[in-house]
Amino acid sequence: MNTAFEELKARLLESHDLGAAAAVLGWDQETYMPPGGGEARGRQLGVLGKLAHEKFIDPKVGELLEGLTQFEESQPYDSFEASFIRVAKRDYERAIKVPSEFVGRMMVQHTEANIVWQKARPGSDFGAVHAHLQKNFELARELADFFPGYEHVADPLIDLHDYGMKASSIKILFSELRKELVPIVDSITSQEPADDACLKQAFPEDRQLAFGNEVITAFGYDFERGRQDQAAHPFTTKFSIGDVRITTRVNPDHLNSALFGTMHEAGHAMYEQGIDRQFEGTPLDGGTSTGVHESQSRLWENMVGRSRGFWTHYYPKLQETFPGQLGSVPLETFYRAVNKVEPSLIRVEADEATYNLHIMMRFDFELGLLDETLDVSELPQAWNDRMEKDVGVRPPDDKDGVMQDIHWYNGIIGYFQGYSIGNILGAQFYDAALRAHPEIPDETARGKFDTLHTWLRENIYTHGSKFTANELIERVTGSELSIRPYINYLKEKYGELYDL
Amino acid sequence: MNTAFEELKARLLESHDLGAAAAVLGWDQETYMPPGGGEARGRQLGVLGKLAHEKFIDPKVGELLEGLTQFEESQPYDSFEASFIRVAKRDYERAIKVPSEFVGRMMVQHTEANIVWQKARPGSDFGAVHAHLQKNFELARELADFFPGYEHVADPLIDLHDYGMKASSIKILFSELRKELVPIVDSITSQEPADDACLKQAFPEDRQLAFGNEVITAFGYDFERGRQDQAAHPFTTKFSIGDVRITTRVNPDHLNSALFGTMHEAGHAMYEQGIDRQFEGTPLDGGTSTGVHESQSRLWENMVGRSRGFWTHYYPKLQETFPGQLGSVPLETFYRAVNKVEPSLIRVEADEATYNLHIMMRFDFELGLLDETLDVSELPQAWNDRMEKDVGVRPPDDKDGVMQDIHWYNGIIGYFQGYSIGNILGAQFYDAALRAHPEIPDETARGKFDTLHTWLRENIYTHGSKFTANELIERVTGSELSIRPYINYLKEKYGELYDL
Repeated sequence: MNTAFEELKARLLESHDLGAAAAVLGWDQETYMPPGGGEARGRQLGVLGKLAHEKFIDPKVGELLEGLTQFEESQPYDSFEASFIRVAKRDYERAIKVPSEFVGRMMVQHTEANIVWQKARPGSDFGAVHAHLQKNFELARELADFFPGYEHVADPLIDLHDYGMKASSIKILFSELRKELVPIVDSITSQEPADDACLKQAFPEDRQLAFGNEVITAFGYDFERGRQDQAAHPFTTKFSIGDVRITTRVNPDHLNSALFGTMHEAGHAMYEQGIDRQFEGTPLDGGTSTGVHESQSRLWENMVGRSRGFWTHYYPKLQETFPGQLGSVPLETFYRAVNKVEPSLIRVEADEATYNLHIMMRFDFELGLLDETLDVSELPQAWNDRMEKDVGVRPPDDKDGVMQDIHWYNGIIGYFQGYSIGNILGAQFYDAALRAHPEIPDETARGKFDTLHTWLRENIYTHGSKFTANELIERVTGSELSIRPYINYLKEKYGELYDL
Repeated sequence: MNTAFEELKARLLESHDLGAAAAVLGWDQETYMPPGGGEARGRQLGVLGKLAHEKFIDPKVGELLEGLTQFEESQPYDSFEASFIRVAKRDYERAIKVPSEFVGRMMVQHTEANIVWQKARPGSDFGAVHAHLQKNFELARELADFFPGYEHVADPLIDLHDYGMKASSIKILFSELRKELVPIVDSITSQEPADDACLKQAFPEDRQLAFGNEVITAFGYDFERGRQDQAAHPFTTKFSIGDVRITTRVNPDHLNSALFGTMHEAGHAMYEQGIDRQFEGTPLDGGTSTGVHESQSRLWENMVGRSRGFWTHYYPKLQETFPGQLGSVPLETFYRAVNKVEPSLIRVEADEATYNLHIMMRFDFELGLLDETLDVSELPQAWNDRMEKDVGVRPPDDKDGVMQDIHWYNGIIGYFQGYSIGNILGAQFYDAALRAHPEIPDETARGKFDTLHTWLRENIYTHGSKFTANELIERVTGSELSIRPYINYLKEKYGELYDL
């Protein structure tokens, strides 16, 4: 036993647990907190954020890390010990650049902004959030400036979420993606649209929730180590490997929102539940990047949950759950409905083809708001114009326009690219899984997900943050990040449904 | 503005907020946490407890307090500033005696023990909790030993909850109480028992909860600054003056549990919600003692919620809520049922007369377990024997015997006396309220509680911890703690129902 390593572990565990406590407070804020709790909650999260950061950047941590260099080098690269020290060093080098006071102040601001957004959104009151949004972007710029020498002010923020990427490389990736994607979308939307009236009926909330829970239990989400609650914006949060929770929102008049949202969040949550339990409370205890994380949510939501095989098995069960609504709707109609491609307002409910158009727009706006070529006051108009141009539909209000996503209002900036990287990566990982186990689609059609879940756990989940996203992609797929499998997947899937 | 005072405030606020964060984690543990979350939760609470304590006992806090002596003396005794410094000093002097490491270790142990108790209780598995209970009492003794010079090892623990009291003074109080109480109980239980069959029917959970919420809203509990959830053991918890939550447990086959439990917890919660908002996050932000706290819960639960006037107004509403169960039950039958005096197993469901017998027994056992004249292994037998002797009923198992209360298993030791002090004080405060506002019973009979709630808020709640219990009793009632009003109250109430 290396005592310096043990001391480092103990110190970082304290910092980690303060972060986990903040996550509990954040979860509570989104699920059960009464209105009166908001004011103190921001203050409390600020203290936790500041202290977690203070504990982490303690000079003693730096000394321990420094002193452990030889120990690290003596251990195999992918060993727990070497990986722990490697990742801790990377995190530490980043963290010491940011003052704890700033971290606390930022958490207070984000909590306040989030509360204002929650209240303002139902009434489309962009005016109410304007100043907070501006403040959040100012703080994001301030945060970026602790990492001087960047090419674009967004780069340090992107790096925090998708380590190793930057604005320019994502722009290239997105322009390749756009080139392939737009013709597919144009081709589909010029044809007779699918009839999705069957999804737009009254579906009692409790049965929607029960069905979703049944599905994700079959996927492999462990309710002994998690739970699902309702929230204004669906999210996954983690307090330990033994407690990874998801939230969903139920639309009583549309089946998609809770159903696919639940599968999506379960994908995130299974990633976190699947991490090697030895990593509990260490710097390795968490998904390795936003892109890899979103690959898991999108894989389960789309490649599994929107597949023909999945519904071959589950549609009769869904019909039993909602006999009045779906009893006389044929499987083919339902399958086409859940895969309907159409210009739509809400990102999280968008189909697989147009989804990325929503993301690329957000990404561009984020760059503009960060480098100040776009002003917050111009954003609602710019949003609506761009939606009309890119997606083909103009939001009637800000609620379902620029105010639909929690991210910017909650200070999550530098994150959106991860969703499209996730779509790309999800297909790439799924492709690798199919090469290893060609029986996966057959199993899916029998309502069995063990082979897929086990493969993902052993190849991706268990490693936590041990490998960077790029290392992981290389290890798992044998190649670099590539849009090919995703484009092939879309062409194959939609080629069967439409004349492409 | 006094800058030293402002610095002290800022420092204590951080410590306070760490405590509030721990309270959120504790609430979650009792309400929604999945089984897998338990292990890390203990660790996380340990870190929060340790850090809150570290922040509080920082020598800089001591220096600031020292330096503020003159400022304190320059302000009126009951001013915010003087009270802040006075109470902070008292808390500080106590806190510095206990090492932070011990506080963290104790929180970890209490959380683990609590989880084990939760699992073991349904199966009456005392063996499973035995070692944890022993450990909790060992830690309690260790804690007491940080305050040497005590008369009884329980004294420092009692002092933490009921400042200024000790085992010997409580023994005297309880022996006076017992002398008056036993003849009343004996006299009642020798007569024909009330028929409470009407309470023992199937009452749908959701309607029980809705009715309870309606009642406490009328009392003055503010749901904008709180909420009610279900938990294995009802409790009140506070994250800020803007967020004071209660929990209840619903027995689908007995009306009392949720109904009176909800009123009880609302009494606690209204106290905390009613504290002067200027006190938020300060040492004054909390009820002043366990006894005073319980006086508020017991006052609302019993003096109001079990009064004839209350049911004159609310019984027709309850009948509307449960027409099948209560439609044909006369008010008089119902009123006698909710005030039935009988030997019973469960403290929280005991009637007002026998309730104190449960407490006195716990108090004596606590002293014995602390001074080691009683061993944990002897406790179940001793419990059952004493229940039979004192209350007149022998528990058939440990679940409803020695394992019924969360307190000892959660490390809450030195607390139980507060319930009986609360009964005594509740009557004393209520008596003072009636002297100031003789119209209160009439208002209660009209379903109005504003005069009582306002009086309590202005005379008790708003002060938080500004005054000690003894100071408060003197201010509010004009005399010392006395069992007289309580005994008079019982005699009058039961004298109307029984031949005393």
